[in-house]
Amino acid sequence: MIVMIIVKIGGRALEQGLGNVLDDLKTLYDRGEKIVFVHGGGDIVTFYSKRLGIEPKFVISPSGVRSRYTSPEELEVYLMVMAGKINKEITAKMLRRNIKAIGLSGVDGKLLLAERKKRIIIVDEKGRKRVIEGGYTGKIKQVNAEVLLSLLEKSFLPVIAPIAYGTEGELLNVDGDQAASEIAIAMKANTLILLTDVQGVIIDNNIVSCIKVKEVKEIVKSVGMGMNRKIILASRAIEGGVKRVIISSALISNPIINALKGSGTVIEP
Amino acid sequence: MIVMIIVKIGGRALEQGLGNVLDDLKTLYDRGEKIVFVHGGGDIVTFYSKRLGIEPKFVISPSGVRSRYTSPEELEVYLMVMAGKINKEITAKMLRRNIKAIGLSGVDGKLLLAERKKRIIIVDEKGRKRVIEGGYTGKIKQVNAEVLLSLLEKSFLPVIAPIAYGTEGELLNVDGDQAASEIAIAMKANTLILLTDVQGVIIDNNIVSCIKVKEVKEIVKSVGMGMNRKIILASRAIEGGVKRVIISSALISNPIINALKGSGTVIEP
Repeated sequence: MIVMIIVKIGGRALEQGLGNVLDDLKTLYDRGEKIVFVHGGGDIVTFYSKRLGIEPKFVISPSGVRSRYTSPEELEVYLMVMAGKINKEITAKMLRRNIKAIGLSGVDGKLLLAERKKRIIIVDEKGRKRVIEGGYTGKIKQVNAEVLLSLLEKSFLPVIAPIAYGTEGELLNVDGDQAASEIAIAMKANTLILLTDVQGVIIDNNIVSCIKVKEVKEIVKSVGMGMNRKIILASRAIEGGVKRVIISSALISNPIINALKGSGTVIEP
Repeated sequence: MIVMIIVKIGGRALEQGLGNVLDDLKTLYDRGEKIVFVHGGGDIVTFYSKRLGIEPKFVISPSGVRSRYTSPEELEVYLMVMAGKINKEITAKMLRRNIKAIGLSGVDGKLLLAERKKRIIIVDEKGRKRVIEGGYTGKIKQVNAEVLLSLLEKSFLPVIAPIAYGTEGELLNVDGDQAASEIAIAMKANTLILLTDVQGVIIDNNIVSCIKVKEVKEIVKSVGMGMNRKIILASRAIEGGVKRVIISSALISNPIINALKGSGTVIEP
């Protein structure tokens, strides 16, 4: 079994912290570490949607989670920006650092198989719960790690865009954190690093340095919505066999090396 | 050595003939043939460029070849449409036919290394020759077949978008026919099939069924500009070791199986 690190970056962290992250990846790659890199980039999708005259739509779930509503037109932009622009630009930046990078999406080799959320419950602008048609967003059901394993064997570093192949043959938008977490579980990764634009899980102005899985239920009550989701995914990854999940900032110097040394928040069994 | 078939499709053939082509690919794939699929899609790039408010620019070479001029803004759209939209949609269509397809671009794993054409000679609207800055278009210099070979070994069918990694670390637009031809040479492919929207090389209203490499210089004088280029690339592929190149229509039923049986034009040593 290969010891693997799965690194995920999205949002403001991707736009502002990528250079430092790639420098660290280069150090680890040269040491022979097996790494899979997952990116997000929803804000860049939103930028291009608007340029194409498509007003991005977001929905709020009853638990308060805000997420992109993917219409067929929006899916097209999502594919183009995620798999075409962001994925290939990151891949080229890695190649410039002599990392043998290879950009893929979850569609390729049916890496990520997802189920479309056909109906979703949302809270509308008047605070009422409503059931609406779910758009082209999916929940990951299966990871076919075969393609990643054969690439890692040949020292490639896979760069993954958060797009999945749907159980009914559709292309689907999937959450980048979820993609990284499911890949980490399927590949029995040692470490999953979720890079963000804050220093970790923060409670009462302090960074929580370590969370045990059994503490998660209590802790999620005290943190904000985005972080909340990351912690739940992290605990799911640990239950799935990942040894540790680190939530840490991409905006510090040596973000990955420092995360591995204990900066940020570690979620453990 | 594996006997390989490289299939390229672009233009109107891609927009109208893809279904039939994929059905044939499925038949060949199930027989165990090793296939690499290269796509174009310039018209779809043009469509999205216009939607984004970027007026596509074309230039005419002194020999009369019309080609896309790739500004930095246009390159962005080219990446998005080729590697994001077209590549992933074709990949998904193959997966629906139970072909283990995997979509890549020439950037991934540095599959296609190209040199940017820094200066190009064009003929301006007044018929004068001018030297202009070359934009983000490249000429393929090297194919790193390693990634394709390892995927073919595992029964994947690679689907390639015509984008290359530049010798100076840039992303570059490359010609799809050239990409297919260079891949065929590098992989010592048995057969290269260039699918188009006409039945083959046509002279005096007749389809030329066979062209020997030594006849190419004479024949290119009698055919139109687009076909001209294909024949020159074909003869280069043959000189590079490919056993035969077939130029044939994607708009007939069983386009690939018929091409292999001799429909269209075969270019041979």
